Amino acid sequence: MVRERLPPRVVIEDVDPEIACGRFPIKRVVGERVVVEANVFADGHDAVSCRLLHRKAGDSWSSISMQPLGNDRWRAAFTVHHLGTYGYSFEGFIDRFLTWQRDLEKRVEGRQDVGVDLQIGAHLLREASQRADGTLRSRLDAAARFVGGSAAVDERLAVALDPSLAEQAARCPDPRLTTRYRQELRVTVDPPRAGFSAWYELFPRSTAPEQGRHGTLQDCRVFLPYVASMGFDVVYLPPIHPIGRTHRKGGNGSPLALPEDPGSPWGIGSDAGGHTSVHPELGTLHDFQELVARARELGLDVALDVAFQCSPDHPWVVEHPEWFRIRPDGSVQYAENPPKKYQDIYPFDFDTEHWEALWHALKDVFHFWISQGVRIFRVDNPHTKPFAFWEWCIRDIKAKDPDVIFLSEAFTRPRVMHRLAQLGFTQSYTYFAWRNTKWEITDYFGTLTQTDVREYFRPHLWPNTPDILPEYLQTGGRPAFMARLVLAATLGSNFGIYGPAFELVENRAREPGTEEYLDSEKYEIKGWAIDSPHSLRELITLVNRIRRENVALHSDRSLTFHDTDNDAMVCYSKRSPDGENVILVIVVLDPHHRHSAWTQLDLSALDLDQRQPFQVHDLLTDARFVWSGARNYVELDPASVPAHVFRIERRVQSKPDFETDA
Amino acid sequence: MVRERLPPRVVIEDVDPEIACGRFPIKRVVGERVVVEANVFADGHDAVSCRLLHRKAGDSWSSISMQPLGNDRWRAAFTVHHLGTYGYSFEGFIDRFLTWQRDLEKRVEGRQDVGVDLQIGAHLLREASQRADGTLRSRLDAAARFVGGSAAVDERLAVALDPSLAEQAARCPDPRLTTRYRQELRVTVDPPRAGFSAWYELFPRSTAPEQGRHGTLQDCRVFLPYVASMGFDVVYLPPIHPIGRTHRKGGNGSPLALPEDPGSPWGIGSDAGGHTSVHPELGTLHDFQELVARARELGLDVALDVAFQCSPDHPWVVEHPEWFRIRPDGSVQYAENPPKKYQDIYPFDFDTEHWEALWHALKDVFHFWISQGVRIFRVDNPHTKPFAFWEWCIRDIKAKDPDVIFLSEAFTRPRVMHRLAQLGFTQSYTYFAWRNTKWEITDYFGTLTQTDVREYFRPHLWPNTPDILPEYLQTGGRPAFMARLVLAATLGSNFGIYGPAFELVENRAREPGTEEYLDSEKYEIKGWAIDSPHSLRELITLVNRIRRENVALHSDRSLTFHDTDNDAMVCYSKRSPDGENVILVIVVLDPHHRHSAWTQLDLSALDLDQRQPFQVHDLLTDARFVWSGARNYVELDPASVPAHVFRIERRVQSKPDFETDA
Repeated sequence: MVRERLPPRVVIEDVDPEIACGRFPIKRVVGERVVVEANVFADGHDAVSCRLLHRKAGDSWSSISMQPLGNDRWRAAFTVHHLGTYGYSFEGFIDRFLTWQRDLEKRVEGRQDVGVDLQIGAHLLREASQRADGTLRSRLDAAARFVGGSAAVDERLAVALDPSLAEQAARCPDPRLTTRYRQELRVTVDPPRAGFSAWYELFPRSTAPEQGRHGTLQDCRVFLPYVASMGFDVVYLPPIHPIGRTHRKGGNGSPLALPEDPGSPWGIGSDAGGHTSVHPELGTLHDFQELVARARELGLDVALDVAFQCSPDHPWVVEHPEWFRIRPDGSVQYAENPPKKYQDIYPFDFDTEHWEALWHALKDVFHFWISQGVRIFRVDNPHTKPFAFWEWCIRDIKAKDPDVIFLSEAFTRPRVMHRLAQLGFTQSYTYFAWRNTKWEITDYFGTLTQTDVREYFRPHLWPNTPDILPEYLQTGGRPAFMARLVLAATLGSNFGIYGPAFELVENRAREPGTEEYLDSEKYEIKGWAIDSPHSLRELITLVNRIRRENVALHSDRSLTFHDTDNDAMVCYSKRSPDGENVILVIVVLDPHHRHSAWTQLDLSALDLDQRQPFQVHDLLTDARFVWSGARNYVELDPASVPAHVFRIERRVQSKPDFETDA
Repeated sequence: MVRERLPPRVVIEDVDPEIACGRFPIKRVVGERVVVEANVFADGHDAVSCRLLHRKAGDSWSSISMQPLGNDRWRAAFTVHHLGTYGYSFEGFIDRFLTWQRDLEKRVEGRQDVGVDLQIGAHLLREASQRADGTLRSRLDAAARFVGGSAAVDERLAVALDPSLAEQAARCPDPRLTTRYRQELRVTVDPPRAGFSAWYELFPRSTAPEQGRHGTLQDCRVFLPYVASMGFDVVYLPPIHPIGRTHRKGGNGSPLALPEDPGSPWGIGSDAGGHTSVHPELGTLHDFQELVARARELGLDVALDVAFQCSPDHPWVVEHPEWFRIRPDGSVQYAENPPKKYQDIYPFDFDTEHWEALWHALKDVFHFWISQGVRIFRVDNPHTKPFAFWEWCIRDIKAKDPDVIFLSEAFTRPRVMHRLAQLGFTQSYTYFAWRNTKWEITDYFGTLTQTDVREYFRPHLWPNTPDILPEYLQTGGRPAFMARLVLAATLGSNFGIYGPAFELVENRAREPGTEEYLDSEKYEIKGWAIDSPHSLRELITLVNRIRRENVALHSDRSLTFHDTDNDAMVCYSKRSPDGENVILVIVVLDPHHRHSAWTQLDLSALDLDQRQPFQVHDLLTDARFVWSGARNYVELDPASVPAHVFRIERRVQSKPDFETDA
């Protein structure tokens, strides 16, 4: 045993939040609080104190005293004010002076002689002063002289037992008795839109006002006010790059395209260019810049789709054959899910020996579009590219541009989806589209928002996408669309719809048992009748306004489910961090029948008093009800509005019983 | 980015068991299995395989294929056959050949042309062969030539799709596609007695056959057969060292000792010696050696009490004043819990600058007694000595003597108790003495045996100790002693009693509201009437025999609680690792009244069939009952026997309905 230093006595363990032993950062948005807990304790009976340390990366540490919660658990919190990376850690120390003070009090109560004890205290203060500077040093020194001096014992005790003296002594703890937590934990701080956003996905080529014409980015620019008018903040475009010709897919995904078939936007690359070019039929890079500028005027961010795959006509296939896998017959390996073949798509070979050049080329795609003003990327199938690539690529980009948002479109096994979020993706697609029953919804969103998962995985909820027309929407008609809209927009602070298919209640599948749209927009140009009187446009506008106006809906951390006695009716609430704004949502999940239920509200989660009636104000219909206690009756007819979105008003107008109306 | 190697694609995470990110080992006894699970997965769609690696420390690795449990979770197990430290870790790899084989099967089913695919497979086999040696290399090479050769496609497919070929290829995975888990996790393997033991604590000075005489180690040797006859395996002695005179405590802990008062054995040290000496009134070191030898003949281990504290007369006080804290008036700091003073005890000052010498001196105390044949130490108040000391001391001792057992006597806050166990203590005292109600018992033992805690904390259950006569025993009479005995011996694979006080139902407290014995043996010599007809000796003997004969009771990992509809009746079961032996215990917790209940058995935990009746055989009374399903009626009278200890017999003698008795 050769140890110079006395080993530390204070233990700091079981830190929350801490992801995978500190391997990954947690996530917050600018202005959010980080509440941190840890077990801090020591051997023996000495008093222990501890501090939370925190800093913006590169800055010096700030510290806050942690508060004991009992059972050796401590808590503190700090706010992240700036984009980028923050660090946090802990320091715990044996507080010799506080121990002495605590014991002294008991000795005084026990009427013991404390002459020698005051000398011991004076000695501890002298030691502390030697570790202090400036005023603090002078103060501690003066206290030491007085406590160990010749004044009356009562006077010396008054000084010795002063809590502020212990606070001063604690500011210069004995380094021999101090433990630093084993590592610095990290927080990725994202822009507010990372935590709260409403997305609208549209195909620019379907935005021409004339039926049948290939829409352009200029048409799309003109279409934007419609999107903004519904209250969305992000307009998301499928790939806008040149579309390949070889093995191009025709209507409904047919392997035989007709010459006039426009092809799938995900078949990227032609002689007109690859991932940094604009499809000639959509327009030019200049048109794209104008689109981004117009969107910004309307309060919209443009999100681009990044799909790292190539059509056989992509320039890279010739320029960089080393990035693809070559089959023994000399052909390039196309995408497969045996026995299915996708000969219109060449995946990259990430196991290539030239992987570093490939990684850089792909990262440069992001850099290119960032230089064009894009700040949000929806990444197609990230789980089929290396984990390590994403960690490196996103870290590198966010080091320079911490406001960039990456949405992971991985519909795969949960652990893989969670890993991508841990590695850096800002937001993540979820299984929402397939969570329709009460049990499915409460179980899934309980896991996402009330476990560690919430520290790194920001759920993004889509009731539909160009690839997913869920059976619930196929069979439930207009009430199903309304219910799923309310669920997506209130369960998830981040949600999106694929429109105008959604608001126009497009629900025809290509064939029974599939989730593919009939005459899918992926393979053809659509002309959408957005002014249809059947459009859900007004409801969407209202829901987005309710979201904006109610801070409770800006985050998912407070999501709480409440029981009802009817499995067709789900009930949940969210509250704002200050507790002022509380939203209670009830949705009928059966789109076919009128339902009623008795609620069993968790009143403490709602900060309601069992004995005080309260008013619930339905922000969808403007109806108001006076409720009381946990059990309240609700009835919903899906054919009219399949949901209540209540704001809880704590004050109920009431007159004292002994007064009478005039 | 400068990286030579392709970053690993396989993720290995969320390993269970893994304590505090691998900071601490888990514990097992010789012959036990270690079942290990981990999440193992990769990006992309390639097949992943993984192996559990394990070894005795210093040996080379063995490996076992892990089995998928679904949802990317994998499991494997190994057995620890030898004392000491084992290591385990993981390796996951992208299985290119298995991926290819899996895809090939689908292509064949889809009746596709597989000519090029067979060439790809041959190439993968050739690559694998280049990483292999000897026969494996030749085999893979031959397979490569055949699969890529000119034989009929059907014949080549038969070879290519052979599962054993994939197994062979998997034995030489591509190191570029292999991930090793970030660290080697550890297992401390203890002797079987660490996991299953029945302790008997006694004061040697009370073992003289004549009333009033100071008993000796020779008397104690003669007393041992009584202890062994009840089925105990460990006889634990309070400190046997010279007892100090200065501030010696008198009867009932009085601060004024009379000259004839023998003093507390925990007031260690006099001019006759310190922690490595034998109290002259007990005898000599030679007597102790004879005691240990006799115990061994009887199948008993002698456990010694190690209390690191000194009487003012301890030789170290003069020889090593630097190991104590000196007060400003020049006196040595005595033990305190202000305002209480324990002037008969000097604690060590572990913050001393001479801590290294102190640590070595204390460790040498263990070494000394180990050299005298002691293998079990009950450590007094370890939580008032540095955590780091214990970690170093126990690790160092067990590196040479891995069969040594350390029992932590820390009755303090749970996190501190758990930490001591993590740092190396083999067994730990628990709150059992204060857990009397059904809720207290199920909650506490649920945490100890069904969470991570069980991986490092081995509970040791004591219904009484010389310091603890719980109120339940004070007020519950003989039925309370019987109930607590059965609970301790069946809830805990490790348990002990402080006797003969326990079996003689000694339950008089010094005063109401305390847990101290009246006329405590800590301060005086007792003469116990061990042949009293009221002794619980026979019940204890029976319970210890039941424990030995039923493997289910040799471990706590399988502990399962079952509901009953009466809060005064607790019900739980344990099963042997092979499932053959199942014990179901029901205890009435109210010692004053007869109670009955309906059980609600968890049949799956008992491996019972809902439709098959089963026999329960009460090993305490030899009664047998035929039960069926989850609900069964039980009735217990605490005045006779307050418990059932059933062995479940799966076969019930029954004749088919259509047969009649002759």
